[in-house]
Amino acid sequence: MKIGLDIMGGDYAPRAIIDGAVDSLMHLSGDDKLVLIGDQQEIYSRLNETGTDPSFFDIVHTTQVIEMGDIPSKAYSQKPDSSIAVGYRLLKEGIIDGFCSAGNTGAMLVGASYTVNVIPGVFRPALATVLPVLNNRNAVILDVGLNPDTKPDVLLQYGLLGTLFARYVLEIENPVVKLLNIGEEESKGTPAIKAAYELLKGHPGINFMGNFEANDMFGEKTPDVIVCDGFVGNIVLKQTEAIFNIYKARNLNDTYLERLDFENIGGTPIVGINANVVIGHGISGRKAIMNMVLQTLAVVHVDLAQKIKEAI
Amino acid sequence: MKIGLDIMGGDYAPRAIIDGAVDSLMHLSGDDKLVLIGDQQEIYSRLNETGTDPSFFDIVHTTQVIEMGDIPSKAYSQKPDSSIAVGYRLLKEGIIDGFCSAGNTGAMLVGASYTVNVIPGVFRPALATVLPVLNNRNAVILDVGLNPDTKPDVLLQYGLLGTLFARYVLEIENPVVKLLNIGEEESKGTPAIKAAYELLKGHPGINFMGNFEANDMFGEKTPDVIVCDGFVGNIVLKQTEAIFNIYKARNLNDTYLERLDFENIGGTPIVGINANVVIGHGISGRKAIMNMVLQTLAVVHVDLAQKIKEAI
Repeated sequence: MKIGLDIMGGDYAPRAIIDGAVDSLMHLSGDDKLVLIGDQQEIYSRLNETGTDPSFFDIVHTTQVIEMGDIPSKAYSQKPDSSIAVGYRLLKEGIIDGFCSAGNTGAMLVGASYTVNVIPGVFRPALATVLPVLNNRNAVILDVGLNPDTKPDVLLQYGLLGTLFARYVLEIENPVVKLLNIGEEESKGTPAIKAAYELLKGHPGINFMGNFEANDMFGEKTPDVIVCDGFVGNIVLKQTEAIFNIYKARNLNDTYLERLDFENIGGTPIVGINANVVIGHGISGRKAIMNMVLQTLAVVHVDLAQKIKEAI
Repeated sequence: MKIGLDIMGGDYAPRAIIDGAVDSLMHLSGDDKLVLIGDQQEIYSRLNETGTDPSFFDIVHTTQVIEMGDIPSKAYSQKPDSSIAVGYRLLKEGIIDGFCSAGNTGAMLVGASYTVNVIPGVFRPALATVLPVLNNRNAVILDVGLNPDTKPDVLLQYGLLGTLFARYVLEIENPVVKLLNIGEEESKGTPAIKAAYELLKGHPGINFMGNFEANDMFGEKTPDVIVCDGFVGNIVLKQTEAIFNIYKARNLNDTYLERLDFENIGGTPIVGINANVVIGHGISGRKAIMNMVLQTLAVVHVDLAQKIKEAI
């Protein structure tokens, strides 16, 4: 499989991105190859500094950069030779099997919608993040920020997208799905949440087990798939980052809390589009980049986009 | 000041409530008195068992109990001699200056609306909780569950209610107010959040400093007052409980994380009604009850309800 990596995107690009790419080499199987997309002089120079043979990678030279502060849709169309636009083009042409970037998130979303497109039948794509749970479990939570105001039928579909993510990426045969709510009773929540509950309850393809409260987050009662709108999911994800910040600020030492480091998770797949794309945190260092690449590989190896296409 | 305490409300009532009342005695000043409201036989019996002189308390005998599973509005009207209904009556008549209960939350809210009433000019009362922040700070977050779907003018008023809470209860002269959002930029969030941003920005009585993301929760960037709708606030509060659950599950030892124990916070004031009322967690043990009583005393000593009445 070929994974495209945007070398120019992220606060510490290109150096940390290239270093992360080098670190990920040892985790690739013989059939996998990383395609570095960006300024080739930067790439060769850094690989040389780190004593890495460039032939381990495919390299695609680009001449433009979408900056973190650029207006996404404008930059995407006005910079056709940017690493992000080129990455999406390679993806669309089937030259790469997955693409990841820690660059301008908005531009990554523009490319997702305009170049690879939403899968027919998907109402809204979502950002789906792996959430580390106690006792070595992982859950998936979606949406974590793409759609802040979500309708019931979209939440229902998140239940389905999340089920597919958990089944193929987390390897949980029959994942438990719950709706994040402010009480366990069916009658709780906003009108949209209550309507979503009814829809989820009746869907034969979703192992829906009802509502779930945030005090059960990270513990036994945490389902394999947490469904919520993008506003709430974003708050939950970021508050999880805040937990890791406390952990650091207090100089604690704990193997579980260590797992909450976003650098160990690496990236957030966009689910519901016609290709496997993963978005990284702007502040990604080399470790986060390595894990973003591995997250992309995981999604590509099971071809999550194709699995969703078949199921929708 | 006289603080009414519902002895019959909570999963561990009446025993844990009475024990918590006894524990709080040592923190009362000479002018303060606790009024125990509930079955007097239970009260005398437990005080006797703990070797506590009943004359330290006022005791108001009641014959009915609103159970945790009762339908709030129905139970409130059909059980006029319940500890919750009697507590609200005493409050309305000025016999007590504050009232707290770990009992049926819905019934406590019914009493708040129907017996003591909303302050004229307040659109929606809110639940305002103290949130422990690193470096020995405290913030207040509202709403944490009363109004899951909140309009912009209500969010604006939360900014004002929170400012008064922070000024008088947390003793922060000019509290910083921020809006919990999914990005720092003014353009982020749902239409309601964006509209609330505009309203907050223009209000002369609110020291509004813009949006605030959940990854900055608990740290330096956490404002004194966090404004959000009741759905999001409830998730944040409960996820904070989940952090404490991790702390316990992992057998960690840390003075800050210890502060996140809801038992150390005790109760959540209802702000925006004509009296000082505090709601406790159903699972409150004696320590939580003691802190709920102290939280009520704090609110009563500054007469937060009166301060809000004057400011609205």
